[in-house]
Amino acid sequence: MDEFDLKGYLSRRKQIVEEALEKVFPTASGLEKRVVEAARYSLFAGGKRLRPILCLAAAEVVGGDLWPVMPAACALEMIHTYSLIHDDLPAMDNDDYRRGVLTNHKVFGESVAILAGDALLTEAFESFASCVGAGINPDRVLEVIRVAVKASGYRGMIGGQVIDLECENQKVSLATVEYMHIHKTGALLSASLEIGAILGGADRERIKALRAYGHHMGLAFQITDDLLDVEGDSTLMGKTPGSDAAKNKMTYPALLGVIESRAAAKEHVDSSLEALSGFGEAAEPLRAIARYLLVRRG
Amino acid sequence: MDEFDLKGYLSRRKQIVEEALEKVFPTASGLEKRVVEAARYSLFAGGKRLRPILCLAAAEVVGGDLWPVMPAACALEMIHTYSLIHDDLPAMDNDDYRRGVLTNHKVFGESVAILAGDALLTEAFESFASCVGAGINPDRVLEVIRVAVKASGYRGMIGGQVIDLECENQKVSLATVEYMHIHKTGALLSASLEIGAILGGADRERIKALRAYGHHMGLAFQITDDLLDVEGDSTLMGKTPGSDAAKNKMTYPALLGVIESRAAAKEHVDSSLEALSGFGEAAEPLRAIARYLLVRRG
Repeated sequence: MDEFDLKGYLSRRKQIVEEALEKVFPTASGLEKRVVEAARYSLFAGGKRLRPILCLAAAEVVGGDLWPVMPAACALEMIHTYSLIHDDLPAMDNDDYRRGVLTNHKVFGESVAILAGDALLTEAFESFASCVGAGINPDRVLEVIRVAVKASGYRGMIGGQVIDLECENQKVSLATVEYMHIHKTGALLSASLEIGAILGGADRERIKALRAYGHHMGLAFQITDDLLDVEGDSTLMGKTPGSDAAKNKMTYPALLGVIESRAAAKEHVDSSLEALSGFGEAAEPLRAIARYLLVRRG
Repeated sequence: MDEFDLKGYLSRRKQIVEEALEKVFPTASGLEKRVVEAARYSLFAGGKRLRPILCLAAAEVVGGDLWPVMPAACALEMIHTYSLIHDDLPAMDNDDYRRGVLTNHKVFGESVAILAGDALLTEAFESFASCVGAGINPDRVLEVIRVAVKASGYRGMIGGQVIDLECENQKVSLATVEYMHIHKTGALLSASLEIGAILGGADRERIKALRAYGHHMGLAFQITDDLLDVEGDSTLMGKTPGSDAAKNKMTYPALLGVIESRAAAKEHVDSSLEALSGFGEAAEPLRAIARYLLVRRG
């Protein structure tokens, strides 16, 4: 089981997701060309494609086909990308670089960056809806849209971002930091698995198990991300270590210390694996992703 | 026929739409409270509710019920409101007032205003999806979502806004101004009618007729809006006359002159009425709305 080639798997999946994104969000030629160009700049700026990969893996774990789920997987990446563009804006985190390249507004200007984010969010729902053309039951497609809204709107990601902005430069409790992360990044990660499971045709129990995996994996992801900011290597991370501390962001290491944070990450990885106990060999990619978090270097 | 009480009709419809919006986008109590408060500030800042009213009227014209369509009508108003919040931002039109009250970012700050817009756009798709619970066929609901995306994304409203920003302070042709309006405001107005017709159970021919009405009515609306900016009364308009000219916005009167613009508005109103020729008495509200554009004072 330990021989699963995660690196090869992720690289192959990244490639098919990027090919699909190219079709879902192609270049435009009209007067609206520039906003599409801006959206594509960030969409193809070298993300790990973690959300689409998790979505596809969840569909496969429950016995679903890969291709009918692909438009939803792309939609998740579009939502993630829009959130990064808006989060980087001067009025928000005011970041000049992301993944080693200039942020959207530094290249296209603030107004186009705002609209490019809006366009990605809007088109994500076209992409979800188009799953029906790939043969998926329309009731399941509508359910997926509602899961995506809950995870990315004010009850999820947007709520988390607002809390993050409000807590900056403030002393907050571990409970608040956890609440923020569960909303800001956890909700969409968890939803990626839930959406894959729904579209893959899973029953309620299996949907719940995959959502639980996503919840714990998401927290482990966040904790290890915070740890990398303390201990990491900027060439692998695409951002500068210590940047969270410089911004007075409340992180797990700042609240718990490095050793306790490592233990918490390990606990969440264990819980995520536990959630997968009812699944066989097909869940091996998800297990490998969770285990990898404990040894990641970027 | 001329005795149709448009004022009473619009006021009653505005009220039921606002009651529905209150349920679709209620106050929140968690840490995300502030972004919901900001979204509601603009959602309840006194709009005419034209898009929901058109959507409901279209559903009725084709024999559909009012209430199953209401969540979609609310979704259209949420999309319209998000676009106003983002358009008013300092990086965009930089407006301090809208409808006589402070714009969202002047009250809540830029970061919360951006997120409030994002939240309204996101929740709009929950509201569309929820039509299925009101008994509408899921395939029709998905079709409506795709119509809404096309009308509000880069192929519609966002595309129009990008063109508007690029054309500011530039001499552009009438064709470009028309292209901009058809995208920036026309697409969502037209979609409001199309969506009402689809959800009301219309066949392709009737959907097409109502979309055509929306197209011409939307252009007449825009031309008369531009004319009001030249001739209007600020107390009725909620904005300062002459503000378009002050910003070097390309308007119909600036390009065609006042008399030609009036003639163009009249032509579009006539075409919109022509598109309704196959409908009986049930279309009277839509006819009255179109005719009103030629005598509007605010």
